[in-house]
Amino acid sequence: MTEMTRVAIVGYGNIGRGAHAAILKNHELYQDIGVVGIITRRPGAVIEELTERTGKHKRIYQDFVLPSDDPSSWKKLEPDVAILCGGSKADLPVQGPVFASYFNTVDSFDTHDHIHPWTDDRGHYRLGHFKEMDNSARANNNTAVVCSGWDPGISSVMRILFDAILPGCNPRAFYGLNDSGGLSQGHSDAIRQIPGVKDASQYTHARHDAIGRVKAGENPVLSKGDMHWRECYVVLENDTQEERERVKTAIVTEPTYFAPYQTEVHFVGEGELLDDMPHDGIVLASGTTGEGNPASLEYRNVWASNPGGTAGILVASTRAAHKMSLEGKVGAFTLWEALPYITPRSQKYRLQEQM
Amino acid sequence: MTEMTRVAIVGYGNIGRGAHAAILKNHELYQDIGVVGIITRRPGAVIEELTERTGKHKRIYQDFVLPSDDPSSWKKLEPDVAILCGGSKADLPVQGPVFASYFNTVDSFDTHDHIHPWTDDRGHYRLGHFKEMDNSARANNNTAVVCSGWDPGISSVMRILFDAILPGCNPRAFYGLNDSGGLSQGHSDAIRQIPGVKDASQYTHARHDAIGRVKAGENPVLSKGDMHWRECYVVLENDTQEERERVKTAIVTEPTYFAPYQTEVHFVGEGELLDDMPHDGIVLASGTTGEGNPASLEYRNVWASNPGGTAGILVASTRAAHKMSLEGKVGAFTLWEALPYITPRSQKYRLQEQM
Repeated sequence: MTEMTRVAIVGYGNIGRGAHAAILKNHELYQDIGVVGIITRRPGAVIEELTERTGKHKRIYQDFVLPSDDPSSWKKLEPDVAILCGGSKADLPVQGPVFASYFNTVDSFDTHDHIHPWTDDRGHYRLGHFKEMDNSARANNNTAVVCSGWDPGISSVMRILFDAILPGCNPRAFYGLNDSGGLSQGHSDAIRQIPGVKDASQYTHARHDAIGRVKAGENPVLSKGDMHWRECYVVLENDTQEERERVKTAIVTEPTYFAPYQTEVHFVGEGELLDDMPHDGIVLASGTTGEGNPASLEYRNVWASNPGGTAGILVASTRAAHKMSLEGKVGAFTLWEALPYITPRSQKYRLQEQM
Repeated sequence: MTEMTRVAIVGYGNIGRGAHAAILKNHELYQDIGVVGIITRRPGAVIEELTERTGKHKRIYQDFVLPSDDPSSWKKLEPDVAILCGGSKADLPVQGPVFASYFNTVDSFDTHDHIHPWTDDRGHYRLGHFKEMDNSARANNNTAVVCSGWDPGISSVMRILFDAILPGCNPRAFYGLNDSGGLSQGHSDAIRQIPGVKDASQYTHARHDAIGRVKAGENPVLSKGDMHWRECYVVLENDTQEERERVKTAIVTEPTYFAPYQTEVHFVGEGELLDDMPHDGIVLASGTTGEGNPASLEYRNVWASNPGGTAGILVASTRAAHKMSLEGKVGAFTLWEALPYITPRSQKYRLQEQM
């Protein structure tokens, strides 16, 4: 009998919905994972959404959808792992350590500069996401797989792998290679945190001249701003010229998400934000082997739905968090350490089909 | 102080030389790995080659280059890991279990069909490379990282990873995408085993129509022969029409390496084989997330020197074999299990620089 990983989904926005769909698909294919509940700030609306989608009666979701302010109710779900689907700006820094004190967790925290220790704008030293999750998980004998989305996450794995097999190859990641760019959930979320912003979408664009230089093996020095530029579509609560000026300044001067980049801000009406959330990206590395033989390595992913892609990675990581916890691996781990545990396939399958 | 991994190189052909160069480069960058000796069937010639390359006196290579038929001399090297650089057709099936009984090992065995149990052409059941290495390593408390080249190896990792994060995506690998194709060491080696063949190079060509169908998300059923065709350049000991017919038949009917493919055989004169050994390949997968949002994943490597690329992967795996052995992980492992151990980077570095 396959051991089933019981998952609680925390947060039911785009990533939470994507995780739900991905778990159902994994369950259908491998029967090794299932959703035991959803924890949300707005249980009423989520129950509404689920009843509409499935045509089932509200009643059956009563013990399945639980409020995010009631830990005693969550515990009744007895999840093996909680998938944290909140945003990196405001949700995960608060929710993360709380949930890691109750359950094994996975998250796709993606503020690169706040993963390791950092100093905030009031001059306070901060532990960073990895250490905060590690402390909470260790103190409570839990396992936390952190920063396990597309980037950080899969792209980080590629960077570490490429660096190991082609020493000195200096891997770089580029996002938003197609003309319309790629929707960044983390950056969109960061704009939405600004008071007066009703909704926002942030499209990241790769600078193709920089990609060309890396591909040519130039190994150039590139700042963040040399590699990408950012395009923001913003809906205001109150669309006045004054508000536009204020919000635009708040965006372009935001120190981690926007200040290092050329950033364009467009104000649009409600309903003008696009619904689809495509994104794509590559990790590129080049170097030499032996007596100067050129070599290059590349990873690429193209998602019609960025949250869908992130959710697939999170759900595979859920399997890892559960198995690592059963092996007594306590504390925070990145996808690099969790990788051998993410596959639903048996070793026999891996040898027979995958070699 | 960094622990140094002491490596013995077994076999000093293209891959052995590549491994030597890769260890020197890793040593220069990370000081965590070094060569303690070379074990070869032709110690005299290898000492000659080394003295010519370095300008040093023969004498200093006396205890560094050792004959492959004298285990007592190898043991004096006290290697932490032996890198097995022989061919998959004739060398590794014999050398592998022998060396795994003395030392931790890594190899790039690449006959896909002989990794797991198989039946040979005399009807004998065979354990396959994984199990043979596992038996020998376990019985002697050693660690063997097997099949750890480009494919199987890195491409296998990509297939397992893609399958885990995008369930049902059916990853496929294609080799030799450029016009001249890619030099396959395993297939060239297989031709060289045929009596009467003096030398040979085998170029693998991808079928671009098949790549297009996979990229379009068609998820087609593809036989081996639908995906690649093979081009062989052969130098005969004795170039007669009769010999050409005999050798050509021996090649195209060889059951694992050639029979499943359209295979072209060209006979050429000595000196007409090209010296450079380029190869490239991709692993492609496509599927959907959520409610039918297309997603695609791709890994690509381009090597001007195929043995150079393979050697880089083998050397990174050497680090893994040593660390896994120190942790008491005994038996055979594929690169998938060994992956977290291949990087020379500290966890701090991975968090700070690679996330």
